[in-house]
Amino acid sequence: MQSIERLVLLGTGLISGSFALALKRARLVKRVVGVGRNIENLERALELGVVDEVSTDAAQAVRGADLVLLGTPVGQMGRLMQQIAPNLPVDCVVTDGGSTKQDVCALFRENLPRHLAMCVPGHPIAGSDLSGASAAQFGLYEGRRVVLTPLPENDLLVVEWVRQLWVSCGATVYEMSAEQHDGIFSAVSHAPHLLSFAYMNSVLDRYNAEQCLDFAASGFRDFTRIAGSHPDMWRDIALANRDSVLGDLKANVAQLNHLIQLLESGRGDELTGFIQRASRARIEWGKPKKG
Amino acid sequence: MQSIERLVLLGTGLISGSFALALKRARLVKRVVGVGRNIENLERALELGVVDEVSTDAAQAVRGADLVLLGTPVGQMGRLMQQIAPNLPVDCVVTDGGSTKQDVCALFRENLPRHLAMCVPGHPIAGSDLSGASAAQFGLYEGRRVVLTPLPENDLLVVEWVRQLWVSCGATVYEMSAEQHDGIFSAVSHAPHLLSFAYMNSVLDRYNAEQCLDFAASGFRDFTRIAGSHPDMWRDIALANRDSVLGDLKANVAQLNHLIQLLESGRGDELTGFIQRASRARIEWGKPKKG
Repeated sequence: MQSIERLVLLGTGLISGSFALALKRARLVKRVVGVGRNIENLERALELGVVDEVSTDAAQAVRGADLVLLGTPVGQMGRLMQQIAPNLPVDCVVTDGGSTKQDVCALFRENLPRHLAMCVPGHPIAGSDLSGASAAQFGLYEGRRVVLTPLPENDLLVVEWVRQLWVSCGATVYEMSAEQHDGIFSAVSHAPHLLSFAYMNSVLDRYNAEQCLDFAASGFRDFTRIAGSHPDMWRDIALANRDSVLGDLKANVAQLNHLIQLLESGRGDELTGFIQRASRARIEWGKPKKG
Repeated sequence: MQSIERLVLLGTGLISGSFALALKRARLVKRVVGVGRNIENLERALELGVVDEVSTDAAQAVRGADLVLLGTPVGQMGRLMQQIAPNLPVDCVVTDGGSTKQDVCALFRENLPRHLAMCVPGHPIAGSDLSGASAAQFGLYEGRRVVLTPLPENDLLVVEWVRQLWVSCGATVYEMSAEQHDGIFSAVSHAPHLLSFAYMNSVLDRYNAEQCLDFAASGFRDFTRIAGSHPDMWRDIALANRDSVLGDLKANVAQLNHLIQLLESGRGDELTGFIQRASRARIEWGKPKKG
């Protein structure tokens, strides 16, 4: 397959850095340029061999690039697209690693309207509490999933190339519409993050919050792990995928109100049924998948 | 310290079996009797050396006992207390491992009213997804916490003895009122379990539930781990600690409604603040404790 001459990472962190490392290991990239605003992070990326060159100027960096990966939070992508638009080589492929896809599609249309054949929106499913270039690792994408949500304007050979690059990183690649993607990830990722933040705040509001936190154990630890996630990133995701997220939050409030009614009226059998439904499905989900 | 001649486990599972194993290792118990309804489980407990003798008859088993541990779900404890009341030696200490304490205190008062000096309610904080005698382990309580919620009627020497037994199992023992206990554990254990059940059900209600579950990853895995918990046990806990749990569920609904408002009106800064508050507290909580 065709290898990359000059890969430019706009945002040099866990997601983009691990992509670069995996491609280096697969000998599919000659030169990696790390772009960012945090000089210390860029120097660390250079030191660790995640990138071969660093820059704080996205517009300059993309000159001569054949692949650009947008690896910043989605909230910063529009401005970056504007910056690179004048210098972007006509045959340069652009992709991204954002957690929401309808908004990224809209950003591509708005900011790179003459380049849409080459812009392939993507979402590698490899979240982590860690961030920054120093968290990048060769094997992050092994056995992980990557979702691509191609635009109707996409050159099919370009989509296929991006797909193969992710496969070379060890990932399994799926294609779906941006709308489907955002619905699914609202349900199983964005909404649970917001529910975990809301729960954490409800504990903090208690008069005996400190004592409660002192006695919190493993159930609390796991339930709230995602509540420690990055505020700016999750604000961006919540706002970007607002309609889906609102639907899921409201569905949750409805479930909770139903549960409150069952408890208030002491309907033990229905309460058992409510819990059984959840418990069975979670146990089933946790079993090793076939095939 | 005074060792136990005959320890009777009413309910032979993870919690009671691990208590017996730890006391055996500390050479603090001579004979352990495992009582239960599941013959297969009792035979397994005997085979594994968790108990020395088994019985399906609680009333007979407590003859000659000097310590009885109620290790069943709280919903079964009242009936067991009634069964053992006629045969309970006057100097036999009774304790329990239930996750709620106001209701267990009430059950002691109701069913063993002439024995209250010897009844010490307790809650070892060592939950696990596992259950049954075969899950019992010597070291389960090492470094764990045990909360005792003594009755005003308790003989102080008896409370001290129970405390020392748990310390011998490797646990750190705390004392508080049953009311304090139930408020704290509603906040950091009971409510999160119910929230996780409710969230799981909201995903199952989606038209594309199967596809959502297929793409669910590590955030979902941790957030819903406790949704796989045992339905009967958690129905009992929810009903037993109903007032506290209802308060916490309603506080959660209020947080979610606030979050929904922030999203609907696109108040990005307040949304950041909302997430930051939760995220900072969770990161702080996850740091190793001092002292």
